[in-house]
Amino acid sequence: MDQQHQCTTAAATIHCIVKLGGAAITCKNELETINEENLTIVSSQLRKSMILGTTHGMDWSRRPGSLEIPTVIDDDVNHQSELDSKKFIVVHGAGSFGHFQASKSGVHKGGLSKPLVKSGFVATRISVTSLNLEIVRALAKAGIPSIGMSPFSCGWSTCEKDLAVADASTVVKAIDSGFVPVLHGDAILDTSQGCTILSGDVIIRHLAEELRPDYVVFLTDVFGVYDRPPTESNAVLLREIAVREDGSWSVLKPVLQDTSKQVEITVAAHDTTGGMVTKISEAATIARLGIDVYIVKAATSHSLMALQGGLKESIPDDWLGTVIRLAK
Amino acid sequence: MDQQHQCTTAAATIHCIVKLGGAAITCKNELETINEENLTIVSSQLRKSMILGTTHGMDWSRRPGSLEIPTVIDDDVNHQSELDSKKFIVVHGAGSFGHFQASKSGVHKGGLSKPLVKSGFVATRISVTSLNLEIVRALAKAGIPSIGMSPFSCGWSTCEKDLAVADASTVVKAIDSGFVPVLHGDAILDTSQGCTILSGDVIIRHLAEELRPDYVVFLTDVFGVYDRPPTESNAVLLREIAVREDGSWSVLKPVLQDTSKQVEITVAAHDTTGGMVTKISEAATIARLGIDVYIVKAATSHSLMALQGGLKESIPDDWLGTVIRLAK
Repeated sequence: MDQQHQCTTAAATIHCIVKLGGAAITCKNELETINEENLTIVSSQLRKSMILGTTHGMDWSRRPGSLEIPTVIDDDVNHQSELDSKKFIVVHGAGSFGHFQASKSGVHKGGLSKPLVKSGFVATRISVTSLNLEIVRALAKAGIPSIGMSPFSCGWSTCEKDLAVADASTVVKAIDSGFVPVLHGDAILDTSQGCTILSGDVIIRHLAEELRPDYVVFLTDVFGVYDRPPTESNAVLLREIAVREDGSWSVLKPVLQDTSKQVEITVAAHDTTGGMVTKISEAATIARLGIDVYIVKAATSHSLMALQGGLKESIPDDWLGTVIRLAK
Repeated sequence: MDQQHQCTTAAATIHCIVKLGGAAITCKNELETINEENLTIVSSQLRKSMILGTTHGMDWSRRPGSLEIPTVIDDDVNHQSELDSKKFIVVHGAGSFGHFQASKSGVHKGGLSKPLVKSGFVATRISVTSLNLEIVRALAKAGIPSIGMSPFSCGWSTCEKDLAVADASTVVKAIDSGFVPVLHGDAILDTSQGCTILSGDVIIRHLAEELRPDYVVFLTDVFGVYDRPPTESNAVLLREIAVREDGSWSVLKPVLQDTSKQVEITVAAHDTTGGMVTKISEAATIARLGIDVYIVKAATSHSLMALQGGLKESIPDDWLGTVIRLAK
């Protein structure tokens, strides 16, 4: 398939769009708490996947409340030549950031003339942008030239909750200048109902359609998509899902006994943008474009392999995760 | 003067564009330290100037490292009717945020292919966006529906360091939806030299030209513009400066003995975007449009009067500050 032909906006091929799932990088049941250990490993894996050669920390800031002096780059780094790097876009979810504020006020239902909704809109944006800043810092600390970009500030808006204005040109310019844009699920304006919540998964789908990356990776807190809630002991990991041109899909591996069986999913009650349902639906939409989608547990050897593009040719038997791709 | 006629973008009249000077809201000689006391008073004065009636906190987030549970709005607030509010835009400088990272790496000189500049660009944005988040939080806590918007994310860019692309439509949409956009001096892309620093003062001038507010207030850490560095004991506060159509200007009050004398200014060595020189020059450009500019010490009764628009008709004798306006 000639992907270049369909790529109208990007000057250069995007290698990978990565979703950092809210559940993977935050402690989902603790209000506004980052899973620091996972975020550090994820940042390091992203750096290894993007940049060939050594790099250095790009966060020279003091953290609020900390007396620690930031580590600053040596001047002699300027004599190094620029490193080869692959073009990545990072999009993250909200996890324990933003959801509480959004659901408390009903931002997704719109109605900015209501004081509660307007306040909730402001509170939601404060929460998700503070998570964005922390993620940008973690990536920069690992040596990734990360640039935080909020969909609201990019001027993105919806109409009847569907993306209506979502110009990717600022994202593309950042990539072409050698940066890694870091977008996030956000509270944005909606021309019909005033405001809504734009999920990270919808952002990924839109950017995949516009920019046609080689592959898309969803980093999550379980090994992939299961045939029933993964907390159940007999849950089976779905290794490979084939999506047909008409949007229907079926499980290729493992061979399930009851093929008509619906994949059951768990949706956390406080997740205002939908959980695994949205994810599979958005992933299938991306796969229909001929772009491989990998859903994999963050901070594992399996996620590193997916991020590095090691699954494009063949999927090793010992790789744990879910591949969603166009039926051949 | 028919200001409405010249207003091409805004659907509604902007009352005031406020600059929160870096020196007023940060401790300029302590790396990345906010002047909390000033910021709290400034936020409260802004709320009083914008919104008639009582309001409530809109920051429902936990601060990083804090165990404090955020104060959340009562549900019954939804039964309140929307408050009358004046349309404001806030733009802040960097103070002790961003300058260090920018000057260490020379971001204003461009050259993104150099690893030091690219790293410095990332580090600068992390620093200024963390300040932006803190200011948005302080304003929201005071009851102002503040929305952080980075010029980089808005897609603004320069060519040969002059603003080339700076679409204000996202800012206008935020205002029309009842929010208070909070912009900031930022590291942005430059089509000729790769990157540069866009100062808060240049942002103010651009927005004033585009949106024609009733007046512009610069909040700073001294009482206004002096005839020599204000640290000198015999420095004289310039009360009123008249700008002529051709851009030349003269001091109307007080009557200076030596009228040919240049106004001396202090520029802190680490201020990469220029200090008072840029401010007067940008202020004069705004005043030439027929928009009154007030330069006043933050967190004083004088700043409150300026923010509330109390100087439009006449300037009380006991008001301390500098008025810059079109010569009559």
